[in-house]
Amino acid sequence: MLWRHQKKHRNIGGRMKAMNLFYAQSGGVTSVINATACAVIETAAKHKNKIAKVYAGRDGIIGALTEDLIDTSQDSRAAIAALRHTPGGAFGSCRYKLKGLEENKAQYERLIEVFAAHDIGYFLYNGGGDSMDTAHKVSQIGQKLGHPITCVGVPKTVDNDLPLTDCCPGFGSVAKYVAVSTREAALDVLSMSRTSTKVFVLEVMGRHAGWIAAAGGLAGEKPGEPPHIILFPEIPFDRKAFMRRVKDSVERYSYCVIVVSEGVRAPDGRFLAEADTKDSFGHAQLGGVGPIVAQMIKDEHGYKYHYAVADYLQRSARHLASKVDVEQAYAVGKAAVQLAVRGENAVMPIIKRISDKPYRWKIATAKLANVANKEKMMPRSYITKDGFGITARGRRYLAPLIRGEAPPPYQNGLPKYVTLKNKSVRKRLKTRFQL
Amino acid sequence: MLWRHQKKHRNIGGRMKAMNLFYAQSGGVTSVINATACAVIETAAKHKNKIAKVYAGRDGIIGALTEDLIDTSQDSRAAIAALRHTPGGAFGSCRYKLKGLEENKAQYERLIEVFAAHDIGYFLYNGGGDSMDTAHKVSQIGQKLGHPITCVGVPKTVDNDLPLTDCCPGFGSVAKYVAVSTREAALDVLSMSRTSTKVFVLEVMGRHAGWIAAAGGLAGEKPGEPPHIILFPEIPFDRKAFMRRVKDSVERYSYCVIVVSEGVRAPDGRFLAEADTKDSFGHAQLGGVGPIVAQMIKDEHGYKYHYAVADYLQRSARHLASKVDVEQAYAVGKAAVQLAVRGENAVMPIIKRISDKPYRWKIATAKLANVANKEKMMPRSYITKDGFGITARGRRYLAPLIRGEAPPPYQNGLPKYVTLKNKSVRKRLKTRFQL
Repeated sequence: MLWRHQKKHRNIGGRMKAMNLFYAQSGGVTSVINATACAVIETAAKHKNKIAKVYAGRDGIIGALTEDLIDTSQDSRAAIAALRHTPGGAFGSCRYKLKGLEENKAQYERLIEVFAAHDIGYFLYNGGGDSMDTAHKVSQIGQKLGHPITCVGVPKTVDNDLPLTDCCPGFGSVAKYVAVSTREAALDVLSMSRTSTKVFVLEVMGRHAGWIAAAGGLAGEKPGEPPHIILFPEIPFDRKAFMRRVKDSVERYSYCVIVVSEGVRAPDGRFLAEADTKDSFGHAQLGGVGPIVAQMIKDEHGYKYHYAVADYLQRSARHLASKVDVEQAYAVGKAAVQLAVRGENAVMPIIKRISDKPYRWKIATAKLANVANKEKMMPRSYITKDGFGITARGRRYLAPLIRGEAPPPYQNGLPKYVTLKNKSVRKRLKTRFQL
Repeated sequence: MLWRHQKKHRNIGGRMKAMNLFYAQSGGVTSVINATACAVIETAAKHKNKIAKVYAGRDGIIGALTEDLIDTSQDSRAAIAALRHTPGGAFGSCRYKLKGLEENKAQYERLIEVFAAHDIGYFLYNGGGDSMDTAHKVSQIGQKLGHPITCVGVPKTVDNDLPLTDCCPGFGSVAKYVAVSTREAALDVLSMSRTSTKVFVLEVMGRHAGWIAAAGGLAGEKPGEPPHIILFPEIPFDRKAFMRRVKDSVERYSYCVIVVSEGVRAPDGRFLAEADTKDSFGHAQLGGVGPIVAQMIKDEHGYKYHYAVADYLQRSARHLASKVDVEQAYAVGKAAVQLAVRGENAVMPIIKRISDKPYRWKIATAKLANVANKEKMMPRSYITKDGFGITARGRRYLAPLIRGEAPPPYQNGLPKYVTLKNKSVRKRLKTRFQL
């Protein structure tokens, strides 16, 4: 295969010409994914000899397939800097998963075609497990298709389920949100518990792994402090033991605060809140376990309840981001660019924990081949024997990740978030691509 | 009627002896009601010639009826100062409403009996409309029962529905929470809207008045900015117009963010989320309108949705309190004590707005007789003609109330909230009281 623009740029007088860098956000966004984007753009600017422009995919990888690229140089440096404190995905994201190479080679050929047409020599894909799989495939295919491309995965997921990295950017801030919200709501419930609402249920995200629910456990520091019960996806729901525990908590403390993961399952393996809709990755779309559990308690014990469903609030609450998380989100973006300019292909920067107390970490590198399509489950040793709480070990792991505050600037009482211009790069291809 | 301890204390050598002050928190708590408590205790300490000790009712007025009083002097000054940044009700609250004087005179006699037994000369009741009614009744009955007591109501309610006062302490912080959360979640939804979730529904509190839902409108500052739709309790739900509006928003902006009040009603007057449980004031207990509205949209338009139910998170989120709200909560507590020591009976400090821009306010005084059992509805002029948004006038009223940040101190990534010792005052009465 041969594309326009491809050959003429690569070598000029023996020196490599600076190539463009393509960056895309993938999957569910977080309150700090834009901090990673900020780092990518700011770090690229320090390597002008190797990186010409940073293009972003409008709506993620779909922007690459449809040749809908955003020229990030059209936004001011101040606007780019403000990404560091702006939640959501500034360029748009998507859950579009590329098929296997055999199944749909055309998708990969199209990607390379677009990359070649726009002198893109670096591909940074910012996402979770599925995205690392895509990045890995692209890293293998470029050379074969005649347009070698340096592919670097950039970790991001509130689910904290990527392997090898000690934690995932995005998780620390959700963890902080859940821990703080649990502590605050618990104080509210306690105030009225002797005469009114006795049970409070907070439903949090976490499809397969209970990392986020576990973070709720940080709200309490001494025995008896809320949350009194955590329901993990890892532990099959034991109704009888649960009901006993609720009653015990209400009788002992006058109230019971419960953090429940959306992914909690009945003993038969079905989600407690089975929904019939699925997202485009084929995952079941969940929601509703909070009110289900609350009503179950009311039916059994007659306790008055309240419940909250945090949903997107938990992963967009940039106002309550963890400073550690923001720093790590920035660090992986910066490291990804540094790996890219060194020509390291098919890798992902990871966070390596050096020590718990004081908490110290550094950036290391993992191979995409070892990351793609693997899910890191929460160790059983982080969950108490009875299955309803976190252990000292779990706490030691989680506690540092919510440390520090990194509030955004405020104006008129509201966080001042940036909206980029997101100017399109002129299309160079005549062909259109059907998704 | 004559009680022990009653006569001997009042007059000593012609000078009034300092009496104790009784303070109780009533009804749903807020993220700043403890700031009011802090002000009451700190201000009382400046009037030692008139106020001996501040007693708080354990679980509100129930603590008075059952002679379960808390001696606030047993906690350190630092602990009391920390109330300023601690959400919930530090002494416990309740929704127990005293009956009418004719229906249950025994309750009022008991109150006065307890007040007399503990040399209580001041009664500060911190709550909403129902509580102001109680305070008003108590203010009338003391004299008749031979133990005159100075009763001062102290405004508090996230519902913002007390009359005469420009706003109610507690509301500004919920308003800020809802506005910030709407803005943040909207950025999340927008990121994915072209390929995934198009509709986001945030369910907020507000039984009869749409003040809290209206505050969501502050999230957007320019036309087209989210929230795209607000559903108010004041506007009968017009399904057809609503569905048209949702579709229009998705087609125009690619997404639709909706803030819905729990109190929104069908044209027949029933709550959209009618529940069969009622609280002890006889109000219907609501919840669930968020998912109902979201599913309704899915059925009609097929749009993928997400919803969040903020519930207690919104009224306990002290980490995101409005600085103006914290200051006003403190100011009414301080003013209440000042009114009490001046012997002003049956009054309530109110917030009077002097100007919108710059926002200036002061404390004034209202008569409890004019406050009790009245609900301030939101002016129709604050809601747009189509019923789905707020007007410039509504914005002018709401905007100043969310101004400024007043973050609590943090430790290990979590807000450092105080838990008081809440030591009991020794009982002096032999009789027990059946609630």
